Amino acid sequence: MRSIRVELGERSYPIHIGSGLLAEIGERCAEAGFPVRSPLLIVSDSEVAPRYLPALEAALRDYGYTVVHHIIAAGEASKSLAVYEEVMTTAIQAGLDRRSAVLALGGGVVGDLAGFVAATYMRGIGFLQIPTTILAHDSSVGGKVAVNHPLAKNMIGAFYQPSMVLYDLDTLASLPARQVSSGLAEVVKHGLILDKDFAYWCREHAAELLALQPEALGYALERGCAIKAQVVSTDEREQGLRAILNLGHTIGHAIEAVGGYGVFLHGEAIAIGMAGSALLAVKLGRDKSIYDETVSMLTSLGLPVTLPAEYSEDELMEAMMHDKKFKEGRMTFIVPDDIGTVSIVDDVQASLVREVIAQLKKEGSPW
Amino acid sequence: MRSIRVELGERSYPIHIGSGLLAEIGERCAEAGFPVRSPLLIVSDSEVAPRYLPALEAALRDYGYTVVHHIIAAGEASKSLAVYEEVMTTAIQAGLDRRSAVLALGGGVVGDLAGFVAATYMRGIGFLQIPTTILAHDSSVGGKVAVNHPLAKNMIGAFYQPSMVLYDLDTLASLPARQVSSGLAEVVKHGLILDKDFAYWCREHAAELLALQPEALGYALERGCAIKAQVVSTDEREQGLRAILNLGHTIGHAIEAVGGYGVFLHGEAIAIGMAGSALLAVKLGRDKSIYDETVSMLTSLGLPVTLPAEYSEDELMEAMMHDKKFKEGRMTFIVPDDIGTVSIVDDVQASLVREVIAQLKKEGSPW
Repeated sequence: MRSIRVELGERSYPIHIGSGLLAEIGERCAEAGFPVRSPLLIVSDSEVAPRYLPALEAALRDYGYTVVHHIIAAGEASKSLAVYEEVMTTAIQAGLDRRSAVLALGGGVVGDLAGFVAATYMRGIGFLQIPTTILAHDSSVGGKVAVNHPLAKNMIGAFYQPSMVLYDLDTLASLPARQVSSGLAEVVKHGLILDKDFAYWCREHAAELLALQPEALGYALERGCAIKAQVVSTDEREQGLRAILNLGHTIGHAIEAVGGYGVFLHGEAIAIGMAGSALLAVKLGRDKSIYDETVSMLTSLGLPVTLPAEYSEDELMEAMMHDKKFKEGRMTFIVPDDIGTVSIVDDVQASLVREVIAQLKKEGSPW
Repeated sequence: MRSIRVELGERSYPIHIGSGLLAEIGERCAEAGFPVRSPLLIVSDSEVAPRYLPALEAALRDYGYTVVHHIIAAGEASKSLAVYEEVMTTAIQAGLDRRSAVLALGGGVVGDLAGFVAATYMRGIGFLQIPTTILAHDSSVGGKVAVNHPLAKNMIGAFYQPSMVLYDLDTLASLPARQVSSGLAEVVKHGLILDKDFAYWCREHAAELLALQPEALGYALERGCAIKAQVVSTDEREQGLRAILNLGHTIGHAIEAVGGYGVFLHGEAIAIGMAGSALLAVKLGRDKSIYDETVSMLTSLGLPVTLPAEYSEDELMEAMMHDKKFKEGRMTFIVPDDIGTVSIVDDVQASLVREVIAQLKKEGSPW
């Protein structure tokens, strides 16, 4: 088992990564400080629960815990205030008290919703994350929990740190190949922003990662979580440095918004966005190899780096202008200076971004 | 103007108390760090808004702020998730950003609801409290914000500190006499738990306080806020000491639950509860003068100290057993050791509490 610690003063917590961890859940909950007399609530979704919930509940009950569960429909639509209130009702009816905890068994949607319940039930109770996707390695570090408002995604939420993250690699075995690549996009992103060696390591070990080979996958998740933890520890409430985690996200979010959520998976959209950021870097005078290497790394992981021709430049530009990262109308981008190093550039010309978008629609090297 | 500072590290904030403060709201918002380019949202209720909202909005606009408002129906029923979502919609449509703030103009219901909006809009934005009741001096210090779930009061919420509290004594002038007395119950409670001199001062100046004489009222609010701030600074997240603030609240909450909310005002119910706690103290061997002095102080402020005969001991006992302060079935009470000093006693016999309830239903001195 690999363990890292997210350093956040009195809100610090461990991340354990390995195989067979679900069987130890009772000991882990005790280690996290949850007393057996206080009921636990597991939140999971309709796809994950049939696979892993029975064993998880059995292990907790064997240890002496009282356990209830609330299963949501899989998918982003469950991140709503209506579902949030239903989970709250389950928590109250089960008699959760101030020393109880909410366990999130699933991907990002389950983690965000369950985390917001934990953050606000009786003004905050225990929270343990059990991510079952690679992508969730990203959302499970950083303490961002939220639900969607009909008018805007993630608009209602809090910064709330889990007591522990338990990453059982066995739960990743059933992931479809596209989901694996999508999750690896955020993994390699952590290398691209802060760790050149790790970015190259991902390319070298791409085949093992895509095959979910436990040793490689465990190391990749450990490094990905550790790099994100390092950034979050420095900037817990997203005042500055944390912005570098948004590499590829400005264009990526615009692709998701214009194409409709679900056309591209999140990791696929930000992979195209990271190719775009590398292209922008070259246009701003950085070395051409940054683009070539970035594209090579992303494609080795089965990720797209170009944009289908039907995407409209006008619509993408407009979606970016509405992105909350643009304060007072200027365009800010995270721009690579090299593989493993980025800068926050806050005076990017809109015309340059439009050129990048146009070029992303063409196959092949731009030079 | 009187000012005190609630010391909570990086979450510290000032409380300003005085006459004519609403006119300075623009300067105060700037002092609190809210930039004029970011829209402000005022939340108020149907009783308070007609009196003070127009002048408040005008003063903010004169200073250069963009202001929107959301008016809720006066009363506890507005502390719901449904109303919370409506306020969120207003905030999103008005384009509130991460540097915006929510201003709560009203009593405890407005403060709790608006505070929970501020705590969770974009994971937390600025929050400024403008209490318009005496009772709100209590809820505006401590950072507890919440809405009700249909199954339980205040079950959904957060600990979230305001950036500033602005107490304009002029807004208290229109309070009905019963509301004044109810608010003063929490004021004198702060003396009873931690400041003997202040408790006696309240009795000596009862007539001025009931007449809302600004000098006396300003001092009383300052001391009340300062004592609560001292407790909260030591125990922000309610791990221990903060429990002493619940003097009179266990019996008080039971009276509210059994009688139906609105029969007794909150301060009236906890006044009867404080008389009960003093009676319990004597039964546990403390000096009889504690009860006599407590009752004298409360009656001087126009507060009830006995319970109408129709209240059932069984129902009150059952309501107390469901109170969340009873961990694992034992009864915990805040018991005065003297005027200005209390202990947390966690092994109180239920039969003794039942005796206290029975005696509270009889007029006149129990000795």
